[in-house]
Amino acid sequence: MREWELLEHIRQSSAGQPVAFPQVVIPPGDDCAVVRVGRESLLLKVDQVIEGRHVPAVASWRGGPFAAGLSRGAFLDLVARKAVARVLSDIAAMAGTPVAGLASAAVPPAFPGDAARELAEALHRWGARWHCPIVGGDVATFAATHPGPLSLSVSVLGTPHPARGAVLRSGARPGDAVYVTGMLGVSLAPDGLGRHVTFEPRLAEARWLADMLGANLHAMLDVSDGLGIDAARLAATSGVRLELDERHIPLAPGATIANALRDGEDYELLFAASGAVPSVCPATGCPVTRLGNVRDGPPGVVLRAADGSTRDVSREGWEHA
Amino acid sequence: MREWELLEHIRQSSAGQPVAFPQVVIPPGDDCAVVRVGRESLLLKVDQVIEGRHVPAVASWRGGPFAAGLSRGAFLDLVARKAVARVLSDIAAMAGTPVAGLASAAVPPAFPGDAARELAEALHRWGARWHCPIVGGDVATFAATHPGPLSLSVSVLGTPHPARGAVLRSGARPGDAVYVTGMLGVSLAPDGLGRHVTFEPRLAEARWLADMLGANLHAMLDVSDGLGIDAARLAATSGVRLELDERHIPLAPGATIANALRDGEDYELLFAASGAVPSVCPATGCPVTRLGNVRDGPPGVVLRAADGSTRDVSREGWEHA
Repeated sequence: MREWELLEHIRQSSAGQPVAFPQVVIPPGDDCAVVRVGRESLLLKVDQVIEGRHVPAVASWRGGPFAAGLSRGAFLDLVARKAVARVLSDIAAMAGTPVAGLASAAVPPAFPGDAARELAEALHRWGARWHCPIVGGDVATFAATHPGPLSLSVSVLGTPHPARGAVLRSGARPGDAVYVTGMLGVSLAPDGLGRHVTFEPRLAEARWLADMLGANLHAMLDVSDGLGIDAARLAATSGVRLELDERHIPLAPGATIANALRDGEDYELLFAASGAVPSVCPATGCPVTRLGNVRDGPPGVVLRAADGSTRDVSREGWEHA
Repeated sequence: MREWELLEHIRQSSAGQPVAFPQVVIPPGDDCAVVRVGRESLLLKVDQVIEGRHVPAVASWRGGPFAAGLSRGAFLDLVARKAVARVLSDIAAMAGTPVAGLASAAVPPAFPGDAARELAEALHRWGARWHCPIVGGDVATFAATHPGPLSLSVSVLGTPHPARGAVLRSGARPGDAVYVTGMLGVSLAPDGLGRHVTFEPRLAEARWLADMLGANLHAMLDVSDGLGIDAARLAATSGVRLELDERHIPLAPGATIANALRDGEDYELLFAASGAVPSVCPATGCPVTRLGNVRDGPPGVVLRAADGSTRDVSREGWEHA
């Protein structure tokens, strides 16, 4: 059973419910939901990090070993970092600003008390680093008779860009160009760590794009499952065709085009915009690369190779198991 | 290691961080955090429900048996119900109104796809029932090499009472009377289900109390760990002494005073107020019982028996394992 399939269940259940809640502006299906309270629009998002699934498993919480020869504290710091960063990447994908976060942890029966303290402190540290104070938490221990691995869930409340508003996936138009921040591919290192754990959510870059481009920033999402499948999501939601140029895909060191299309967990921003877009975010030095164009046509993503041949890459990506 | 101890880690970590976030009005430690966005005050809370810990464990997700001879769908409905209700009980404890919720689930490797759909639908159904649409979700499957039991985390965004504002734990004053909604004790039935799963979060009662009492509603929390320990939390936070009368504790059918003090999971509202308080909420028929009084003195809770003797009950309650 694939995570995507399950998410679709939740989305469809939600889409199927009668529209009885006027506070829901954007229902599940985009990077964040948008709700309204009084005059304020608010972003909401939850995501998880589970030992053995999203981060390497630990042989024993009492003695390790931990991935890459890290100390327990250093390992927990990375787990907390990824849990906070994943959900903030979705706030960035809406060009939003975090307000506050909530964290819950389910911990193995043998999880030491001082490890729980290290984990809580790490969650607070990473929340503070990205201006998203963790204002609530819950920790529960799995029953000894029904144990499980370390499991974190982080929820975040954010605000959309004050001028541009929330940038959805659905606004790409024929004639736009398609861009991506940073570099793609090989986010998972042989030791189980790597960029999928240590990435920086593109909050500053998203803010800069919305400041600079305003209404010309038409659609955006974060590349979490691979360029192929995520570009196809933007195409499908916007009802457009994306033509990407293989020669322009910015590859991380050691990555191939196949890695960029399929590996996932890059947490870079993919966006469609009209008008001029600089090639570097001045505040962070992050590169911004033009990958291709938005066309009329049946929704999908085609990749044009150096020899001019094209192929459909809209199903290339990492389906979460 | 006790859940309470872990929660204190999170709270202390948070209290220890520099006050660099002006959006945080009430930090972790009350039933909900309060944050500010523009002109709006917002409540935030997360809680979990874990198979084998908060609900009975299932022998096999493919075949059951499920608690009390229920079908899989009926069992999942109760699990989802408790997960949503627990967190809404904390919104009620602030006299708040839910705006929207987020749900994440980590499911066992053998969890069937149609069970995931049933679970998602049940979360939406209970959210809708309590006017808290679930606007985002994530489902992840535990790795087959690192399995775990069904684990739900639900976060909720709410608004405080529009006139009274958020009702904290800290406002009880000498001279107040102490009240509780509903009945206490024996929320756990022999089949593992019972009122701890099927309780109704006291949203309507809390709203009515705040409407009616306004500024005379001084302090409130929900009784989740037992009357003894939860009353002691209200006493400690307010810096007051509570004197409760054993003869006035409203006992659920079959419950003893010891059950009321220690069992926990009643999810009733305990509050301190001045002025007249009716004995029934007219909208729901829920009883409201005066239990005792708020006094000056060292913070704590004493129980006065029928023979006039008193004893300290401030440590009687259920410490989550």
